[in-house]
Amino acid sequence: MLSVNEAIATLLEGSNRLVKSEDVSLDQASGRTLASDIIAPIDVPPADNSAMDGYAIRFADWQDSNTGIPITLRITAGTVPDPLEQGSVARIFTGAEVPPGADTVVMQEHCEETDGLVRVLKMPARGANIRRRGQDLSTGQKVLAAGQRLRPQDLGLAASLGFAAVPVYRRLRVAVMSTGDELREPGENIQPGQIYNSNRYTMKAQLAAWGFEVLDMGVARDDPAIVREMMSRAAEQADVIITSGGVSVGEEDHVKAVVDSLGSIDLWRIAIKPGKPFAFGQVGGTPFLGLPGNPVSVFVTLLVVARPYLFACQGVAKTSMTPARHMARFEKKGSKREDYLRVRATDTGVELFPNLSSGVLYSTTWGDGLVRQGVGEDIAEGGTVDFLPYAMFN
Amino acid sequence: MLSVNEAIATLLEGSNRLVKSEDVSLDQASGRTLASDIIAPIDVPPADNSAMDGYAIRFADWQDSNTGIPITLRITAGTVPDPLEQGSVARIFTGAEVPPGADTVVMQEHCEETDGLVRVLKMPARGANIRRRGQDLSTGQKVLAAGQRLRPQDLGLAASLGFAAVPVYRRLRVAVMSTGDELREPGENIQPGQIYNSNRYTMKAQLAAWGFEVLDMGVARDDPAIVREMMSRAAEQADVIITSGGVSVGEEDHVKAVVDSLGSIDLWRIAIKPGKPFAFGQVGGTPFLGLPGNPVSVFVTLLVVARPYLFACQGVAKTSMTPARHMARFEKKGSKREDYLRVRATDTGVELFPNLSSGVLYSTTWGDGLVRQGVGEDIAEGGTVDFLPYAMFN
Repeated sequence: MLSVNEAIATLLEGSNRLVKSEDVSLDQASGRTLASDIIAPIDVPPADNSAMDGYAIRFADWQDSNTGIPITLRITAGTVPDPLEQGSVARIFTGAEVPPGADTVVMQEHCEETDGLVRVLKMPARGANIRRRGQDLSTGQKVLAAGQRLRPQDLGLAASLGFAAVPVYRRLRVAVMSTGDELREPGENIQPGQIYNSNRYTMKAQLAAWGFEVLDMGVARDDPAIVREMMSRAAEQADVIITSGGVSVGEEDHVKAVVDSLGSIDLWRIAIKPGKPFAFGQVGGTPFLGLPGNPVSVFVTLLVVARPYLFACQGVAKTSMTPARHMARFEKKGSKREDYLRVRATDTGVELFPNLSSGVLYSTTWGDGLVRQGVGEDIAEGGTVDFLPYAMFN
Repeated sequence: MLSVNEAIATLLEGSNRLVKSEDVSLDQASGRTLASDIIAPIDVPPADNSAMDGYAIRFADWQDSNTGIPITLRITAGTVPDPLEQGSVARIFTGAEVPPGADTVVMQEHCEETDGLVRVLKMPARGANIRRRGQDLSTGQKVLAAGQRLRPQDLGLAASLGFAAVPVYRRLRVAVMSTGDELREPGENIQPGQIYNSNRYTMKAQLAAWGFEVLDMGVARDDPAIVREMMSRAAEQADVIITSGGVSVGEEDHVKAVVDSLGSIDLWRIAIKPGKPFAFGQVGGTPFLGLPGNPVSVFVTLLVVARPYLFACQGVAKTSMTPARHMARFEKKGSKREDYLRVRATDTGVELFPNLSSGVLYSTTWGDGLVRQGVGEDIAEGGTVDFLPYAMFN
């Protein structure tokens, strides 16, 4: 059996970025993956400016007397200041450029203004209350790295440098298929022997939340010709194909045979629970991920095994995550497989959903994350465990 | 000064859900907030079905002999099985309904089939390998609660119950304004005295990531008439108004005076760092949040103070979060304010961005979360701190 880490490493070794870059406006760039490093083209801030409302002064003017010095300038944010003459002060507001000649800003609460003359009640250190040119960023500095998934603050940073658009990778196109004669779609009437399709909706929503373009190929009946036609179409249109179900060795599992005939497929035995069976291959050169059929297995393998691979295909640089540590409010013996337990976080620790069956999708909605239980790791009540909140997979 | 918790509690006490519900299809429901409880209308699974490929048997038939029993049925997923006659077995596949009369499934690897006769090599316990009707969910069970922000697995669960659409709250409409004569938009030429607007882009992207409908009112020059016109328009169109900058007491801060004249405004002194000043009020009855002007202060108050309030207005039930615990790789004395430190998580702990200035937006993009340093809490190298990954705010 492959360990989970070995499986992920093998997938990543065989992965390539599958998408080219394009420029998009900042309003369209949230969640997209940066295609080139962003280098600061200017200093931020571009000039010394005042950190508060107050008075810009020449510090040396105040060494001898403090009997009141006249205000000769009024500088608001967005204006170009004249130089500050010796023996005068400037009224200045937050964000306004400090005039040439001034070297210190005194906050207004520490000054007294009478008839156009200012007295300083509490003198700060020379240079105080000035945000220096380039204090945030200096020209030529690398501020965002290619492969970064752009968060709101990253877009704010790009904006602060004057970028109206940024280069990002085209969204990865992921084709989603489900298979099974027993599946009916929500809204349809269900007959004996049938169940509602849930994997299709879990997968589509998760892939979309990751920023991929989802191509919903529909549901294939358990008929090799139909599976084959759908698979060929998916391979033409998508960058990656993902399926749920149909990849074990049963007579009614047609996906394996079809992928084998159109490309190649390996059934992997990954030491993960839930999560069997998992298949990896290609259809006419398009990568193929075959997830299990059980709803919890689909969800866990999508998050744990497929996500790093899909992110790599999208050009994302960092595909791993640092788990949080939390106290276990349950006990559970370890096994030969890495177990992804569905838990709920409380102030005093994480609680385990009692039913561990891979068929019980409710276990994933009941809580807010997974505990990763290593191979052979016994979890004791009150012990510390690796906790992966669902939010961190996004 | 208000503590951060007091400020949030005060905001939440004054909050109401501001949006009505609407039905949307599952494909449109990701990230939306559920408007009614979801009650299971059916059992899931709807009937006993086979957990694997194998043979469905009557357990009692096998107590006396194991010389081979004939196969009389072949049951695939999605078909309605005939009853299983005494003294016979059914070939059955994963997910297929267990026929009346059968009470146990033997996995195929534990059977031998010769000339239509089956021998069991390893007999499981009676009742084995059957997923029982209602094992996942039973009719009438509450499975998702109103106020839940719908995650991919929640949509999968709703699908498994046959819901093609779900009731969600209309997206909260949040109007975003920035103010300041010094602001230029990305892509424009910058002149001396000017800086690029970043808050507008950070705020818009963060609000959109939270699933709100963002109304970008643009940038108001520092002119009371313009601010007033923009503010009135925002109050008419939006559920909530949010601004950055312009709410301190300076002569050039027109937002405060305008909101005061059109409604009411309170300047809050929250013991948060960065994050001063923060204002709360209303414009013609539309709630108004006035964030500070500095980019890091905007980002931190948006995440820490504004988010719980906005979520409550959206109808989200849970607005708090459980911080992760991590080891500090730095030391820092506590102060009179709750400090939100920009950090980067590594395998050995969290590292602090060295420049704590609220002007340095780069501090938020450099790392991946905030450490919450309580009032008066000294952080020692190697000590444990509250860590809030940015991903958890989504």
